[in-house]
Amino acid sequence: MQRALDQAQAAARRGEVPVGAVLVCDGAVIAADGNRVEQLNDPTAHAEMQVIRAAAAVLGRTRLEQCDLYVTLEPCPMCAAAIAHARLRRLYYGAYDPKGGGVEHGARVFARATCHHHPEIVGGLRESEASALLRDFFRQRR
Amino acid sequence: MQRALDQAQAAARRGEVPVGAVLVCDGAVIAADGNRVEQLNDPTAHAEMQVIRAAAAVLGRTRLEQCDLYVTLEPCPMCAAAIAHARLRRLYYGAYDPKGGGVEHGARVFARATCHHHPEIVGGLRESEASALLRDFFRQRR
Repeated sequence: MQRALDQAQAAARRGEVPVGAVLVCDGAVIAADGNRVEQLNDPTAHAEMQVIRAAAAVLGRTRLEQCDLYVTLEPCPMCAAAIAHARLRRLYYGAYDPKGGGVEHGARVFARATCHHHPEIVGGLRESEASALLRDFFRQRR
Repeated sequence: MQRALDQAQAAARRGEVPVGAVLVCDGAVIAADGNRVEQLNDPTAHAEMQVIRAAAAVLGRTRLEQCDLYVTLEPCPMCAAAIAHARLRRLYYGAYDPKGGGVEHGARVFARATCHHHPEIVGGLRESEASALLRDFFRQRR
């Protein structure tokens, strides 16, 4: 989770909403990245999407069954559904996101009967640090 | 919609689940592509994601407010949330997808109070052709 927080701080320095993610497979970090929506002009370039795509490319397969995702913010519905498509084993996340989240809030993607894959989920990991990063970023901006 | 159906047929010829999408901005086709999950080893490479990412790159912005998406299948929750992130104006889709869809089914992404953007939505456009493509593909595979 420290590496995900580092990625979130790096995203903030790039002027991106500070969210960072790390993808771990069999105990090894396969991909680590942050939000790059503005830099890449890509509305889908959330931190989770970045590391899922990178890990699938590295491993040469679309199903990442032995892989765990660490991300500093509760995934949005796009990222939650991508986690299901990629068949990730576990999802660890930091801050809860009542406005944009799609795991514990809003669309609750994994709670739907039609969701074809349910990772183990641990929320609130180093929550206060992850929240503080976001709060400080938006306070400076607004 | 014909061009989206053409893209779906091209996807089938590549061995991909046959879904095609076209992104139109101010009456001009900005991007057209099909599902490329297998070819790119990317679990997020659904047709809708491909054209949203391509259009954002072409237009040099992350918000595609004057743009309309045509896709042959009801978007999954990942793609529905990506449509919201990209602020697309209208979503036209073909076949309904009770198992994997996230618009009329399952997570119903746009129906959530926390969803920050709601495109106009027209479902069932050339539904029988779009459904037949998928049905024929899976019949040959299984």
